Amino acid sequence: MRVEEQAGRARQASYRLATLSTEVKNRALESAARALEGHGREILAGNLKDQEQARKLGLKDALLKRLILSEGKLTQIVESVREVVRLPDPVGRRLLVRELDDGLVLTKLTVPIGVIGVIFESRPDALVQIASLGLKSGNAVILKGGSEARLSNRILFTLIREAVEAADPAFRDALQLVETREDVRQLLALDQLIDLMIPRGSGELVKSIQENTRIPVLGHAEGVCHLYVDRDAELSMAVELAYDAKCQYPAVCNAIETLLVHGEVAPQFLPRLAARLRGVELRGDARTRAIIPAREVAEADWRAEYNDLILAIRVVSCLEEAVAHINRYGSHHTDAIVTSDSAAARRFLAEVDSASVMWNCSTRFADGYRYGLGAEVGISTGKVHARGPVGLEGLTSTKYVLEGSGQVVADYAEGRRRFTHRELA
Amino acid sequence: MRVEEQAGRARQASYRLATLSTEVKNRALESAARALEGHGREILAGNLKDQEQARKLGLKDALLKRLILSEGKLTQIVESVREVVRLPDPVGRRLLVRELDDGLVLTKLTVPIGVIGVIFESRPDALVQIASLGLKSGNAVILKGGSEARLSNRILFTLIREAVEAADPAFRDALQLVETREDVRQLLALDQLIDLMIPRGSGELVKSIQENTRIPVLGHAEGVCHLYVDRDAELSMAVELAYDAKCQYPAVCNAIETLLVHGEVAPQFLPRLAARLRGVELRGDARTRAIIPAREVAEADWRAEYNDLILAIRVVSCLEEAVAHINRYGSHHTDAIVTSDSAAARRFLAEVDSASVMWNCSTRFADGYRYGLGAEVGISTGKVHARGPVGLEGLTSTKYVLEGSGQVVADYAEGRRRFTHRELA
Repeated sequence: MRVEEQAGRARQASYRLATLSTEVKNRALESAARALEGHGREILAGNLKDQEQARKLGLKDALLKRLILSEGKLTQIVESVREVVRLPDPVGRRLLVRELDDGLVLTKLTVPIGVIGVIFESRPDALVQIASLGLKSGNAVILKGGSEARLSNRILFTLIREAVEAADPAFRDALQLVETREDVRQLLALDQLIDLMIPRGSGELVKSIQENTRIPVLGHAEGVCHLYVDRDAELSMAVELAYDAKCQYPAVCNAIETLLVHGEVAPQFLPRLAARLRGVELRGDARTRAIIPAREVAEADWRAEYNDLILAIRVVSCLEEAVAHINRYGSHHTDAIVTSDSAAARRFLAEVDSASVMWNCSTRFADGYRYGLGAEVGISTGKVHARGPVGLEGLTSTKYVLEGSGQVVADYAEGRRRFTHRELA
Repeated sequence: MRVEEQAGRARQASYRLATLSTEVKNRALESAARALEGHGREILAGNLKDQEQARKLGLKDALLKRLILSEGKLTQIVESVREVVRLPDPVGRRLLVRELDDGLVLTKLTVPIGVIGVIFESRPDALVQIASLGLKSGNAVILKGGSEARLSNRILFTLIREAVEAADPAFRDALQLVETREDVRQLLALDQLIDLMIPRGSGELVKSIQENTRIPVLGHAEGVCHLYVDRDAELSMAVELAYDAKCQYPAVCNAIETLLVHGEVAPQFLPRLAARLRGVELRGDARTRAIIPAREVAEADWRAEYNDLILAIRVVSCLEEAVAHINRYGSHHTDAIVTSDSAAARRFLAEVDSASVMWNCSTRFADGYRYGLGAEVGISTGKVHARGPVGLEGLTSTKYVLEGSGQVVADYAEGRRRFTHRELA
């Protein structure tokens, strides 16, 4: 089937999916969970073939690791589907109920977005998670997985699709799988059929999608996060926050890449930092290198997402300079201040233009699970639609429903009737 | 000044604007209102020159009419600024306050979007309205008006800019005016500096902007709205709703362009419709023309936005066919059903994929003022960010603020601490 036809079918399915009750959606997801549970051997056999092929092609260890499924992993995957079943339905919430006039009532409802395209790399568990989240929110989902996981993806996809279609015919065509780069290129041109693209993977993947489509993209290309150690910071807290934000998991987007420190405390702070961050490559500006040994930082370092045990350091003269640096070089993802001065903190939180701003805690908290959103669809650094860690509500839009009893606008335009605009319930 | 420099200054200003209190913003807007009030003669003199020039160039009457300012119109314009002062501040609302753990509190706040570009045609009053709405919501605004109103726009812009800057230096560079098509072309490339584009004008204007930028665009290119007269419609109500939705103001986006009618009631309904819509050019399919005289409809008519006293008519065999027609040919703006069958209405409201769906009332109600939103920024047919009539909250984004006391993620990852995820106040 051609990609455009797949997208067209997904679009048709989306109209039906929008009308499904929570119960019908949950029943279908439970069927999918049982299907995955019942076909573990088949899934693992397919995954083994993917692994063999990947080893033959010399796939890097890190990628190979993400590709591998095991019985334990499979149990987790099935559990993740059941977790989505337990999440509240994001569709059908009444955001507003307003009487416009006697017998003329306006409701603003949450509705599914429609058709979502998801492009992810290697990990086959991502296919299951995103398919579940998409169906729970009443969307049709077009999935493109990593080519390394092609067989695993096909098996998982087919099991889920057949299970949900058997549970209710409304799910027919609700899930579509595409496999090649050429398919993706075609998808990106279908802005009349696809409402939202969600790339899950490397910064390069996200950037290449953002640059090649007019479909809105939910995601973030980069995580260049900062920790600013203010003049009035408690230095032992600052050292531990820097350690956690840099070292606890350096490969993720909410780890810090640059540390800014106020000039008045730099002489006391930087040696303690260097001692705690032993093993981290430090790159500093001239003022930093006058205090501790560090490689000379280059202008490009301020915009770099190392995703590794490397930290750029700059000594600043005041809070304003720190804020200006972050707004200029950062990726508007997550930035934190360490200070005991609440006025300084308030200014930082207000003026730093990022999706998450933090005071006296680690940037690593920026995450849907830690924020208590239930499940994370992604982290967005865009300012429209959704910003920061995005939960299931990020897969919804809204719809105004107006119910009347024959009202015409002429009566209001010509002064025969007046709007009451009264909020109900 | 080059357009990119103007946008850069607006971006810098946006960081300050985000921190302003409601009081400071309202005081600045009141200063702007007074400045406009105090310089009526100057504004009208400039507008007169625009009119002379427009007449020389042979501007169409309809456009000329929208260009003309009078003392009465000026009073309305000043009043519109004071109305914006009275609107609640959309910034700083707490959408969520959640304890993640003891002494670790997450708040989700509404914040300004940042820098908004607005492109509008002829009417100089639009400049004042959009500048006021932009500043009230803490955004920097780059304005491009119609070239016919160049002098009027310059005078209005300068008065407002000087008044708000005098009221508070934080407003410096908050408003920027650009004037040429080449300026617009440059603006559309500045997706790193501009967060949202709002085109206000013809469908061609909106479409050309959507097609030439990667900046998110709020708006709708077309309003192809439908009225579906169901088998169980009260026919006299249906006739009056059709009359209001087509004739009360045919030039606007929420007027209907196509009427669909169930085959069982078409023989009774269509003659009554034709009698009431005397003067409207009817274009019908074969089943329609078997009942009433009408021009033959072409496939292109189903997608046409006439904005005129023309109505396309189709007889359908069932509700499903009506819904399918609307989802296929419509512009997802506003569509209504007339029926006494609440089950049919429920289905229509759920399955029609439009920003506003209506039951037994006129599509002309789809409007920010009528919906009680206070002021209308525009009507969006997009499904991300904002959908339907958009009020001041459409100019806001959100920001997560996390306040702690030294918490690190390692403690939670390694099981030493657990999240409480408790909703506060």
